[in-house]
Amino acid sequence: MRRPPVNREKVTIAVVAKQAGVSKGLVSFALNDRPGVAAETRARILQVATELGWKPSLRARSLSTQRSFALGFVIARNPDVLASDPFFTSFIAGVESILTDQGRTLVLSVVPDEAREVKTYRSLVADGRVDGVFLSDLRHNDPRIPLLSELGLPAVTLGRPDGDSPFPAVSVDDSPGITASVAHLVTLGHRRIAHVAGNSALLHGSRRREAFAAALRDAGLPEGQTVETDFSMADGSDATRRLLTQDRPPTAIVFANDPMAIAGLGVAHELGIRVPEDLSITGYDDIDFSRYVYPPLTTVSAAPMVWGRAAATTLLALMENGTADDVDLPAARLVIRGSTAPPLNPW
Amino acid sequence: MRRPPVNREKVTIAVVAKQAGVSKGLVSFALNDRPGVAAETRARILQVATELGWKPSLRARSLSTQRSFALGFVIARNPDVLASDPFFTSFIAGVESILTDQGRTLVLSVVPDEAREVKTYRSLVADGRVDGVFLSDLRHNDPRIPLLSELGLPAVTLGRPDGDSPFPAVSVDDSPGITASVAHLVTLGHRRIAHVAGNSALLHGSRRREAFAAALRDAGLPEGQTVETDFSMADGSDATRRLLTQDRPPTAIVFANDPMAIAGLGVAHELGIRVPEDLSITGYDDIDFSRYVYPPLTTVSAAPMVWGRAAATTLLALMENGTADDVDLPAARLVIRGSTAPPLNPW
Repeated sequence: MRRPPVNREKVTIAVVAKQAGVSKGLVSFALNDRPGVAAETRARILQVATELGWKPSLRARSLSTQRSFALGFVIARNPDVLASDPFFTSFIAGVESILTDQGRTLVLSVVPDEAREVKTYRSLVADGRVDGVFLSDLRHNDPRIPLLSELGLPAVTLGRPDGDSPFPAVSVDDSPGITASVAHLVTLGHRRIAHVAGNSALLHGSRRREAFAAALRDAGLPEGQTVETDFSMADGSDATRRLLTQDRPPTAIVFANDPMAIAGLGVAHELGIRVPEDLSITGYDDIDFSRYVYPPLTTVSAAPMVWGRAAATTLLALMENGTADDVDLPAARLVIRGSTAPPLNPW
Repeated sequence: MRRPPVNREKVTIAVVAKQAGVSKGLVSFALNDRPGVAAETRARILQVATELGWKPSLRARSLSTQRSFALGFVIARNPDVLASDPFFTSFIAGVESILTDQGRTLVLSVVPDEAREVKTYRSLVADGRVDGVFLSDLRHNDPRIPLLSELGLPAVTLGRPDGDSPFPAVSVDDSPGITASVAHLVTLGHRRIAHVAGNSALLHGSRRREAFAAALRDAGLPEGQTVETDFSMADGSDATRRLLTQDRPPTAIVFANDPMAIAGLGVAHELGIRVPEDLSITGYDDIDFSRYVYPPLTTVSAAPMVWGRAAATTLLALMENGTADDVDLPAARLVIRGSTAPPLNPW
């Protein structure tokens, strides 16, 4: 008789595999009731696992009860804001490029508020509609993480949450891109640099804002003006107008996304302020539009399609293996185009 | 004994309902094996239907074999082109606003080519993953229409196909918007008007192109230059550059979508051609960006979110009732903004 383990938490798939003398993959398949394992082998693995006191993990358990071959993506944004942000379409295109090859599909939900969001996750689980989900737009102490843990729904977070999370994170670090934007502007001679920030309730909104403040401090500059927005072009346009119609307007503005930077470019043109001669502008995301407006936008390339592919690959690995590692994608990098130049009147 | 009908094709749900003395809705529910019909009533309706020689229609048949409570949207576009076209995101946001309220979800697939498209539809049906689909970007003699008929998958087409179709169409007429754009430019005094057209393999691409040609003829003007593109910003940019670097460039360009018009605006700025003084520009779709670039774009508002809502409502009605009428939404209308003005040098 095999000895029961001292610490039951330590009984992983690897332990079962070693004891049964088979591969970890085979154990995962057997425990998750997947096809491709001979009945005899499956029975032996299950016996070993039971004797060892193995308990299915949250992820593995959800795998064995659901089999929808679909992944879910619930986006909680105002539809109007969503429609003007090509980031999501690019991200989804990246996800799809992986799923199609795997015979999987994407179940997409756009919800107007958090109450509807909770309801949607609950019904996705109740109806067995998806095997796992992508969590985007992470918030502070994101309530979706305990919710999905409770529901037993595996997830991949886009970026690293600020609290505990049982889910793998696929991340692109925001900060270096903002830091590089500010450093680029400082090198050009700018001293009065403002930030049109995103929604600070979202982690990436507040991280970009912190990176902006830190970069100014590092350059020995006083605190820059920061205007918070909801990431929409309407807000970006209003914020720019407010900044540029002051007595001493900034000579450069760092925007938290490209749609707002493009709206800001429009406001500058309208006010007869030349970009980049009178005003330098940087964006974030490197959406297609940023290459084709004039002047083309200096921005930070986050490669959303690559991100989508990596997130899908990680979530599928989590489905297959019951576990997946965090993935750190290359940090977003600054792409210098025509919207930045030395200021004509630095002070 | 009831008499068998003379013409079996005429045995509709209405005929069965009349004969059985119940409502059409009840017959539909009974024949589609939906809950909410007493077993006895269901049996009687089935008996009447069988005696009358009723044969389930394509739509009703698919209803009875599938029940996924999800709708599908397969988009066959290059992911890059898709990512820069906010039309789809707006349309999907409109669809979602209806589905969420109905406890339905959207299964989204982005496929790179037609072979993959066919495969995707087949597996959506084989896996019983969706109850119906939206067909966008209609092509000439669209092969998806016979394919979906064969597969028994109900659909709603966005726009009216050029061949026979068993599916309801939810349409926004393209032509009046293009006609109005040309008329607006002619009224301003433009005579050399060019068109940056979309992909003519797509019905809306070729319809906009025909409307453009017809509007010039109606104004008594010679044929305008037309450059075909794939609807992408890259193609729109190239086409604009080609048009504007000729010996006698046009004084106005009608673009088949907003992303290309915005790319064209960028090229004009880059070449030092002032918009609207030296060049007038019109777009199509009225995406958010068109309001925030400078000058803001004169464009045609197709209200994609409204379209999405109408398409979802129609597809759900088709699911419920086994039939749904065509819907003609208000024609897209011209929104005049700052990118059009009288030409400085009409000839």
